[in-house]
Amino acid sequence: MKRSFIREILESIDEHTISFAGGLPSEKLFPRDDLKTATMKIFDNPKVFQYGVSNGISELREKIAARYTKEGFPTTKNNILITTGSQQGMYILAKYFESKDITIEEPSYLGAMNIFRLNHLTMKGVELEKDGVNIEKFKESFKQTKLAYLIPDFQNPSATTYCDEKREEIAKIVEDENGLLIEDSPYSELYFDKKNISISCKIPNRSFHLGSFSKTLVPSLRIGWIRADEKLLQSLMIIKESIDLHSCGISQYILNEYLEDEANYEKHLQDIRDDYEKKANFFCEQLDKYLPEFKYEKPKGGMFLYGSFEGIDSFALVQKCIEKKVVYVPGNQFYIDKIPNGEIRFNYTHSSFEQIEQGIKLIKSCL
Amino acid sequence: MKRSFIREILESIDEHTISFAGGLPSEKLFPRDDLKTATMKIFDNPKVFQYGVSNGISELREKIAARYTKEGFPTTKNNILITTGSQQGMYILAKYFESKDITIEEPSYLGAMNIFRLNHLTMKGVELEKDGVNIEKFKESFKQTKLAYLIPDFQNPSATTYCDEKREEIAKIVEDENGLLIEDSPYSELYFDKKNISISCKIPNRSFHLGSFSKTLVPSLRIGWIRADEKLLQSLMIIKESIDLHSCGISQYILNEYLEDEANYEKHLQDIRDDYEKKANFFCEQLDKYLPEFKYEKPKGGMFLYGSFEGIDSFALVQKCIEKKVVYVPGNQFYIDKIPNGEIRFNYTHSSFEQIEQGIKLIKSCL
Repeated sequence: MKRSFIREILESIDEHTISFAGGLPSEKLFPRDDLKTATMKIFDNPKVFQYGVSNGISELREKIAARYTKEGFPTTKNNILITTGSQQGMYILAKYFESKDITIEEPSYLGAMNIFRLNHLTMKGVELEKDGVNIEKFKESFKQTKLAYLIPDFQNPSATTYCDEKREEIAKIVEDENGLLIEDSPYSELYFDKKNISISCKIPNRSFHLGSFSKTLVPSLRIGWIRADEKLLQSLMIIKESIDLHSCGISQYILNEYLEDEANYEKHLQDIRDDYEKKANFFCEQLDKYLPEFKYEKPKGGMFLYGSFEGIDSFALVQKCIEKKVVYVPGNQFYIDKIPNGEIRFNYTHSSFEQIEQGIKLIKSCL
Repeated sequence: MKRSFIREILESIDEHTISFAGGLPSEKLFPRDDLKTATMKIFDNPKVFQYGVSNGISELREKIAARYTKEGFPTTKNNILITTGSQQGMYILAKYFESKDITIEEPSYLGAMNIFRLNHLTMKGVELEKDGVNIEKFKESFKQTKLAYLIPDFQNPSATTYCDEKREEIAKIVEDENGLLIEDSPYSELYFDKKNISISCKIPNRSFHLGSFSKTLVPSLRIGWIRADEKLLQSLMIIKESIDLHSCGISQYILNEYLEDEANYEKHLQDIRDDYEKKANFFCEQLDKYLPEFKYEKPKGGMFLYGSFEGIDSFALVQKCIEKKVVYVPGNQFYIDKIPNGEIRFNYTHSSFEQIEQGIKLIKSCL
C-alpha cells in the first residue's frame, strides 16, 4: 500500500511551487471573522469540552437534516452520522463493506480508491462519459457487485456531472438489483449554474449520501457526514465509535453556531461559487492561450478541470514540472491499474490568477 | 459486532442517573478560560483553517516530543503521529496488525478489545496480577503472538500499575522475541504519588506508546498521539491518511497555543491529581461505609476503582441499578469471553462527592 500521491506532494513541495495538485479550497474565501465570532459563543456551553455521543451533536445533525428536507429530500437528524471529514465517512463505509466487490467510475477519487484497497474491496471500473457513467456497462457491473461508489456532481477528478436521465437510470438499477449506492457529494454546493438533484433522494433506503463542510467552509474543522436510512446508520456507528469515539466536539459546536445564521451561510456559498467560476474561466482562457494542445471540458462547478494531452505521458511530465516549481496530478493516479496516459487534473480554486498564468506557462516550458 | 456497553449507556441514561460508568474526566477541572484565551490567539494564523499534513502540525509534535525527552525518553517530532484521540491511535495499530494474534491483559480496555475484534485480531488473554501481568504466562503467550497490548499505568479497568521489575521483564521479553509492544498510556500523568517509567523507553524501536490529551485537558478536542520509531510511523501514516486525512486543525492549534505556557499546564496537571486523589479517597471511604462486602485495591492514580463482590453477578446487578438511577460497568465486559462475574469498574472522577455517596447507597439498596 502506497501513500496518496497528492498527500505526498502536499508534504514535499515548498512554498515556491505553484500547486494545481491538491483539492485545496481558496483560503481568502474562508469566513474567518464569522467563524471566530461563532467560536467565541461556544465556550459558555458546559458540554463543549466533554466526551460526546458517537453520532454527533444533536443540534448540528438537525441543521444538516433540515437542509436536505428543504431541498426535497425528507431527512431527520436520525438519518445523519457526523464524521471526521467525509474522508472518514468513506472509510467507515469501506470498512463496513470490507472485502466486497464495488463498482466505481474510472477515473475516480484517489482517496476513496486507497480506502477501498486498504479494506480489501475489489474495484470494478466503469468508463465515465461526458454525462456520467456508461449505463450499459454500469448495469452489467452492478448486477455482480450490488454496490457502487459514484461522485455525480463535478466529479473528482473529471469534473463530470451526471445528466438527469442517467441519475434516474442509476437509481432504477440500484433499486431493481436490491443493491446499495454510495453517493459522494462534497462539491454539489459549488455549482456555477444550478444545483443537481441527488441520486440518493430517489432511493433513500438504498443510499449513503456523503457530505462535507471542507469545501464549503473550511477543511480544518474535519466535519463531514453520512446521510442514510436510520437502520443502516446504526451498523456504521459501531465502526465510527471504534475509529475515534466521536468527531471533534469543538468543531461541531463552532459549525453549529456558525450555521445559526443560514442566510449568511447561503451568501458565503454564493461568494465561493462566483469566485470559483471566475477562476475556472480564467484557467480555461490561459489554457487556450498557452496550451492549446490540452483538450478539456469547461467545468460547470466544483474545484477541478480535467483534460488530456495527446501522445504525452502526463506522469513523466509532472516530474519535470515539479523541478520547474509547478505541480498537478497526472490522470493515471485515478485509474485502478494506474497505467500512464496523457490525462491531467488541475485544481483551479487555490491558486491566484497570477499563479494560474505563471503555472500554465511553466508547464508549457516542460513540453 | 455489538456496540460498546459504555457508549450505549452514555447515550441511553438520563441526566438524573448517577454514572460511575464512563471514563469521563471532571468537567469542573477543564481549564475553560485558558483554552478560550488560547483559542483567541490562533485565528490570525492563515494555516489554521486549511488542510494540514497527515502526521499533525509540526509545532505540536515538537512540544509532545520535548515532554518525552525531558522525562528521559529521547524523542523528536518525527517520532510523533497526531491522532484523533488515542482511540484512533489504537484503531490505526489494529488495522496495521489486522488478522494477527495479540497478547492482552485480562481484564482489558473494552474499546481496544472492540477495535481488535473489528480488525480480526485474535486476542490471547493473560491474567493481570496486583503488580502487572503474570510474567510466566505473558512470556508463553508472547512467544506465539510477538505482539502485545498493555496498559501499565493505572490500568483501565483494574487500576493496576506495573512494578518496576515487571516493566523490565516485559521489555526484555519483547526484545528477546523480536516482537512489538503497544503501550497504552492515557492515565500516566494522573498519578497520586509518582510518575512511572514507561516500558516503551526501554525498547524505543519495538514499541508504540499511545498518549492522549483527553484525560489531562479535555476530551472534545479529540487529540492523542502515537510515539514510535520513525520508520514504523511511516507505515501507520498510510492508514491515518485513509481514515481522516488529518486530525482537526483547530484542535491542534488550540492545544499548541495552550501548551506554550508549560508551567501552567504542569500546575493544571497537579490540580487534577489533587482533585482525583480526594475523590478516590472519598469513594473508598463510602465503599467501606456502605458496601463493606465489596473488595478492592485502593487506586494510586488514574480514573478507576476496581473490585468485586463475592457470589454476586455484577452484570445482573447493573440492570437493577440502572432502574434505581445509578450505573457502573460490570467486570465481564472487560474479558474476552464476557462470562459474568462479581467484578465492577467504578469511575470516581466525574461524580460529585454527594453523587458518590448517594450512588453507593443506591447500589447497596439493589443487593
